[in-house]
Amino acid sequence: MATDQPSQYDDFLTRVRRISNLQTAGGVLSWDQQVMMPEGGTPARSKQLSTLSALSHELLTDEGMATHLDALESTDLDDDRRAVVRELRREHDRAASVPADLVEEISEATSEALSVWQRAKDEDDFEHFAPTLERLVELKREYAAHIDPDADPYAVLFADYEPYLDLETAERVLERLRERLVPLIEAVEASDVSFESPFSGTYDDETQMALARDVLDTLGYPWERGRLDTAPHPFMSGTQFDARVTTRFKPDEPMDALTAVVHEFGHATYQLGLPDEAYGTPLGRSRDLTVHESQSRLWENHVGRTRAFWDLLAPVVSDHLGDVSSGELFEAANRVYPDNLIRVEADELTYHLHIILRFEIERALVSGDLAVADVPEAWNDKMESYLGVRPETDAEGCLQDIHWAHANFGYFPTYSLGSVLAAQLFAAAERDVGDVEAQVREGDFDTLRDWLREHVHRHGQRYTTPDLVREATGEAYTADYFLDYVEGKYGDLYDL
Amino acid sequence: MATDQPSQYDDFLTRVRRISNLQTAGGVLSWDQQVMMPEGGTPARSKQLSTLSALSHELLTDEGMATHLDALESTDLDDDRRAVVRELRREHDRAASVPADLVEEISEATSEALSVWQRAKDEDDFEHFAPTLERLVELKREYAAHIDPDADPYAVLFADYEPYLDLETAERVLERLRERLVPLIEAVEASDVSFESPFSGTYDDETQMALARDVLDTLGYPWERGRLDTAPHPFMSGTQFDARVTTRFKPDEPMDALTAVVHEFGHATYQLGLPDEAYGTPLGRSRDLTVHESQSRLWENHVGRTRAFWDLLAPVVSDHLGDVSSGELFEAANRVYPDNLIRVEADELTYHLHIILRFEIERALVSGDLAVADVPEAWNDKMESYLGVRPETDAEGCLQDIHWAHANFGYFPTYSLGSVLAAQLFAAAERDVGDVEAQVREGDFDTLRDWLREHVHRHGQRYTTPDLVREATGEAYTADYFLDYVEGKYGDLYDL
Repeated sequence: MATDQPSQYDDFLTRVRRISNLQTAGGVLSWDQQVMMPEGGTPARSKQLSTLSALSHELLTDEGMATHLDALESTDLDDDRRAVVRELRREHDRAASVPADLVEEISEATSEALSVWQRAKDEDDFEHFAPTLERLVELKREYAAHIDPDADPYAVLFADYEPYLDLETAERVLERLRERLVPLIEAVEASDVSFESPFSGTYDDETQMALARDVLDTLGYPWERGRLDTAPHPFMSGTQFDARVTTRFKPDEPMDALTAVVHEFGHATYQLGLPDEAYGTPLGRSRDLTVHESQSRLWENHVGRTRAFWDLLAPVVSDHLGDVSSGELFEAANRVYPDNLIRVEADELTYHLHIILRFEIERALVSGDLAVADVPEAWNDKMESYLGVRPETDAEGCLQDIHWAHANFGYFPTYSLGSVLAAQLFAAAERDVGDVEAQVREGDFDTLRDWLREHVHRHGQRYTTPDLVREATGEAYTADYFLDYVEGKYGDLYDL
Repeated sequence: MATDQPSQYDDFLTRVRRISNLQTAGGVLSWDQQVMMPEGGTPARSKQLSTLSALSHELLTDEGMATHLDALESTDLDDDRRAVVRELRREHDRAASVPADLVEEISEATSEALSVWQRAKDEDDFEHFAPTLERLVELKREYAAHIDPDADPYAVLFADYEPYLDLETAERVLERLRERLVPLIEAVEASDVSFESPFSGTYDDETQMALARDVLDTLGYPWERGRLDTAPHPFMSGTQFDARVTTRFKPDEPMDALTAVVHEFGHATYQLGLPDEAYGTPLGRSRDLTVHESQSRLWENHVGRTRAFWDLLAPVVSDHLGDVSSGELFEAANRVYPDNLIRVEADELTYHLHIILRFEIERALVSGDLAVADVPEAWNDKMESYLGVRPETDAEGCLQDIHWAHANFGYFPTYSLGSVLAAQLFAAAERDVGDVEAQVREGDFDTLRDWLREHVHRHGQRYTTPDLVREATGEAYTADYFLDYVEGKYGDLYDL
């Protein structure tokens, strides 16, 4: 090939960086919208975001990008450059295969769906949401057919959130989780042991915010590259230079904000561990949702639910909320309460059954095996079968989450897949750096963070997810560690 | 002309809206950078902003835009559309005439200049800044020559900030101000009357912020379309949907923040008065710096320095800062202190001499009549001649402002030109709506705001600045009202 390689690659990279800057600029605008923007700002903000995404879509899909990719794919490139080209090829092909009209139609349909869903939820009226949900499923089926007419449409949608773990693997893991967690939760419920929340008072936002800051300080969150604010739904947003976290405060349950803060710290730590010099290219960008969620869950569960963590934090928590012991905090962090109906309030064990039932329902919806009208009953039946509790309203049942109104079919499974990976990565880290819990008790979080940075963060998108798992752990992706971890920990805690 | 007009205009408008969305998105990113961003975020933020501005420059200058403009200029359009085409033609021609290399060179030179200037200021070392200033003047001369090789280069630069008032008019106004203000200030200084600040304590940020919020409440600032935060240099940023203000707090001089808040409220009120439906086009965008500054100065001076305003506000201020009388506040707001060396701390009268000396110096610099090495002496001589005070250091002299490090030659005059226009507009408003001071005393700010909305804000860029002034006041732009106002007010106050 006669291409002048360095210049071809440089031109390509200029374009890749522009796309990336448009996307991260959009990220700042979204953060602002959720955290700072006055409500009246919506019309301008929607238009700004839509311009940024239209321009980045054009840069990704136009002839110029196709020409670059064709040329670079027939050029001899080093591994890093090949990884960059691989990622852009994938994004280009998917984006270019969906007609702009359909993208716009989906975007408008989901915009409208949000208020329809909100009203249906507020009024506990699934019928009001049903036609909208039907339309969104139909549009997403069409979308999937454009990307790959021969594939299972759900597999195509799933790949928007997790492109490199195939759906069969995901499905097998989720089935194993269901088979093992349902009896484990039943055993926990039947056990004589039970834990209570140690908090009986109410705690104002200022008090909880001061505590949250101290927790982030203890964890070593670098304030010169981040912020902590409040938002209705906690999230992390940013880049390796500026990774911001949010939380929210329940007046009577301060554990809620603490868990959220440690979770979002995990997301931020991943983002901050991406290499500075690769900013703007896939090598400076995080891997997809499974890996991102593995990082938040690793800190939330394998650090934040340990006895050592609460031994370290108990004095800090007591300073802000009044005397509370390490044992009480540890038990509160590991309470299991299967009668809870709400996913975002679920404990570490039942959480996955909330995810699995959503996965099973949306998979059946997309394949056409389940009619929209039958969603509420399917939901309630599964809740009863997996967790022994039946929602009395759809607001507390199939209307509780926003994801379907966003048409995000295929997103839910990554929550559990990430938790599974967290356990696998944590086991590998412990093999390399020794007893992490002992380090945590000493306030040493850097050893764990450095291991994650070395084996996960610094690679960005250099490896696909399965290759990254293999590089970091020496094994293929597996649920073994997760199941050992939960069965071991909860077996001990609940005298099973 | 065979053009299909509606479709041609619509395509053009889509492009215009994209440019506008890129610019207002950049505005959000800049606000965030100054108000929220952790310092580590700079590398990513610079790249995001540079991508947004490169893309908007391309959309503004490429062949597609030129084709649209040519076609639309030979089409019969209504007045509003003709105004939109006029504004884009002007922006296109200026942007397209400057080579991209030079734009980038200026952008890089100013980036580097900032830290050079900061160090020079910190170390009171003009020599350190001189070569940089020389280079910036040279680059901006080149820039001006590309836009109009036959024009006075300073006039070309001035038009970047005030495109429609010609430099001769501006110069005449500034000369009149100098001739009349110098003796007025001398008379004030010679007067037996003198005012003191009523504040002797120190006031923490929280106290001052609570007061600032109450002041904005009193003025009727719509919180659903705005925010108040702190920033090192107070500014306003936003659109008609979301116009945010900032202030800063001096512990021992709460008047400083109050004045800034009323000033930025004036900027925000202009922005918020632009028509919602014209968002994204010149008709939904504010006129240039003279008009914008007229709005901030009108509220700061013609409302915020009146006896009526402080009659209304005295109880509010007393609630937060302890007992203070309306008379004391009014006098504090109208203190004249010519021994002050710093522009941003100057009073209403001496402020303009700070501006005029900068204007005279930068005009001579750009024309080549003044060498960079001679700037400090020219500065100090003028300070002595206009205000009777000579800076002992360049840090308090010609190094005090950031504008020249930004290469913003031509910006300064708009500060005074806006104050002049404020007086003219205020006089016209009083002719129409009666005694504004009486309204203010009753807490009625809406009558004045509605007049400004009707006669200035809602037009966006429909009219050029001179036409807008004529539409709003029935007269050409003039300094008569400003001179009457300051001579009348300060004559009374200081028994002249």
